[in-house]
Amino acid sequence: MTAKNAFYAQSGGVTAVINASACGVIETARQHPDKIANVYAGRNGIIGALTEDLIDTSQESAEDIAALRYTPAGAFGSCRFKLKGLEQSKAEYERLIEVFKAHNIGYFFYNGGGDSQDTSHKVSQIGDKLGYHITCIGIPKTVDNDLPITDTCPGFGSVAKYVAVSIKEANFDVFSMAKTSTKVFVMEVMGRHAGWIAAAGGLARGSDSDGPHIILFPEVPLDEARFLARVDECVKKYGYCSIVVSEGVKNAAGQFLADAGTKDAFGHTQLGGVAPVVANLVKSNLGYKYHWAVADYLQRAARHIASKTDVEQAYAVGKAAVEFALAGKNAVMPTIVRTSSKPYTWEIGSANLADVANVEKKMPAEFITEDGFNITPACREYLQPLIAGEDYPPFVDGLPQYVVLKNVAVPKKLTTEFHVK
Amino acid sequence: MTAKNAFYAQSGGVTAVINASACGVIETARQHPDKIANVYAGRNGIIGALTEDLIDTSQESAEDIAALRYTPAGAFGSCRFKLKGLEQSKAEYERLIEVFKAHNIGYFFYNGGGDSQDTSHKVSQIGDKLGYHITCIGIPKTVDNDLPITDTCPGFGSVAKYVAVSIKEANFDVFSMAKTSTKVFVMEVMGRHAGWIAAAGGLARGSDSDGPHIILFPEVPLDEARFLARVDECVKKYGYCSIVVSEGVKNAAGQFLADAGTKDAFGHTQLGGVAPVVANLVKSNLGYKYHWAVADYLQRAARHIASKTDVEQAYAVGKAAVEFALAGKNAVMPTIVRTSSKPYTWEIGSANLADVANVEKKMPAEFITEDGFNITPACREYLQPLIAGEDYPPFVDGLPQYVVLKNVAVPKKLTTEFHVK
Repeated sequence: MTAKNAFYAQSGGVTAVINASACGVIETARQHPDKIANVYAGRNGIIGALTEDLIDTSQESAEDIAALRYTPAGAFGSCRFKLKGLEQSKAEYERLIEVFKAHNIGYFFYNGGGDSQDTSHKVSQIGDKLGYHITCIGIPKTVDNDLPITDTCPGFGSVAKYVAVSIKEANFDVFSMAKTSTKVFVMEVMGRHAGWIAAAGGLARGSDSDGPHIILFPEVPLDEARFLARVDECVKKYGYCSIVVSEGVKNAAGQFLADAGTKDAFGHTQLGGVAPVVANLVKSNLGYKYHWAVADYLQRAARHIASKTDVEQAYAVGKAAVEFALAGKNAVMPTIVRTSSKPYTWEIGSANLADVANVEKKMPAEFITEDGFNITPACREYLQPLIAGEDYPPFVDGLPQYVVLKNVAVPKKLTTEFHVK
Repeated sequence: MTAKNAFYAQSGGVTAVINASACGVIETARQHPDKIANVYAGRNGIIGALTEDLIDTSQESAEDIAALRYTPAGAFGSCRFKLKGLEQSKAEYERLIEVFKAHNIGYFFYNGGGDSQDTSHKVSQIGDKLGYHITCIGIPKTVDNDLPITDTCPGFGSVAKYVAVSIKEANFDVFSMAKTSTKVFVMEVMGRHAGWIAAAGGLARGSDSDGPHIILFPEVPLDEARFLARVDECVKKYGYCSIVVSEGVKNAAGQFLADAGTKDAFGHTQLGGVAPVVANLVKSNLGYKYHWAVADYLQRAARHIASKTDVEQAYAVGKAAVEFALAGKNAVMPTIVRTSSKPYTWEIGSANLADVANVEKKMPAEFITEDGFNITPACREYLQPLIAGEDYPPFVDGLPQYVVLKNVAVPKKLTTEFHVK
């Protein structure tokens, strides 16, 4: 087998640890120069492949590639761009083949969430359907934790840790001032359809009196009367009420409480600002002084408080992706397999992309308490190991030292241009 | 001199390090049992003194007191309650004396910001004016960094570090996805009248292309046309535009851009939500996809990313307050004196409360660039040492282990009750 080049791309919303997966891919590939000549990264994800804008990762030093392990966001650029089926997006797939051929690319590593694994799956079919054989491995990544089969998704553990740490700290703040100041605090977190991230806030709760006293999940339509009664009860009983609200919470009619009115490239409604809606609901009905926070990108970029477990798993799936490819596997995605919760142990498994594509993992009903406002012990047992351990980046002059790669372009070989719609 | 008891209270908005000052006070007082018999903390600040609700800190173990050094917020409770002048609030001052007498309190340590130092100053006058001698020492604390004389205020360095780290991380996120997703990111930070906290965001800026590209200060009325032109320029030049906005930003007419319409006990307007206002301004005029975050309490509670410099200074002012009292000083506040910026060195100084009370330190004009949108090298030189160093709390099971004190009440000695208005 002569060495071929590999294509690696980051896709969809970035995380605190997606670069750790990139690090795992590149470091592992570098150990096998006989099989993988070079790793070309797509500049801005798959768009880089379509426009023949490839990054030559061999120009990066070993030190800089190692630094990806502690650098948040997408070092090569990511994108929100969904390839449709082989028939509808035939021009795109043919262009991919044109670029892959021109650059002797025999491996396709695609690092993303559900939509991206669907794309990986389609690319894996171009061998049979369009005659260009390429080894195609998906690499899981999503803060939403909604990929099936894998026990968890790299990226989730760190946002979960950020949310649990942040609400714990805010609880201390609000509790200490509740006598004369803010009595209700609302923290909005990500999670469009699944309440995994909001659920992580529940880890901060040691006893009944500890916040968050209420978690509002996308899975549970908001019952305003019951919610307000619970807020009032908490303020009277504990002195304050701490609330974690998922951006995807809906009212009884099934509408998002906050809807920014714009849609992203995948057709998802762009959300934001449910915290002020909930805070105003409390203020206008109960009159309590409130404060609210919207963590937004801070939560998924917060590499400074990443979960060590998450970093290790992100690296491991990147490494495993290359090992799978070299072992001749195709159309698969490395997964995290939990072998024990206490003590927490895990190993790498494998899922077929066909089984991953377009399947969304929901929170199990038994993870939410019967009143709909908090997490169960089973949920806690699942979540707790995922936030375990710290993995601080190096700091210089008070700030984390994240790497910015050179990102040198591979010289173009094609004379054709391709315009991404 | 027979030993007297000391009263310690936390006042106003809490910070990530105000408990480090409490730790400095209590640990130092415990070294001088011949002079300070016990430290009584006010439950919920000065309200605890007025209602004779004192906490017996001698019931706390040395370990728990030491843990205050890494525990955010106010361990004894804080309050927003302003004492007026000796004439207007005579009943309150007489009640304080009644409680101080009943509990043999000879030292008054008041840990707070500008309003609180004003209260400390007034309490220091009750010896001359109301005949009860008490040694009165103010301890500086405020995230707003607006106390005069002292080079900085404990609490500020940690919120500054949180803001600089957070916007740096968010910049990496937004930059990596700007090709197809969010192009403008707005992060709202605290700072009602002074732009110190917003300025700290500027520390994340290494070169012109790095965010934050725009900082909106309370000191600079928003010129919408110039602002929008600059946003557009950044998106076209750098691919994205990162903005830090102070909650206190005003329009040309002098009105707060966001006004929640409620006021706190000090009569300050309660702000919040300027980030969505700025984001919508961008969207409606330039059409760029945006995201926004409001850090709110997360920024001042974030002990996990506290500045080591700040923690050390917070402890040092608590320690110095007790040493000042034992040295016979009165009506003073320990200050931080910067002896050098490069390398950064500092020592403890002293300011008269009369000079501190009701004086608000503004950002010097030479700290803001001429275009009004960023910080100058002089500002950077001032700010940088304040965020230097990390001082991580201990973590167990993925979460910081903050202490919750027993907070046992001192038995009441008075039969009278006092109702706080």
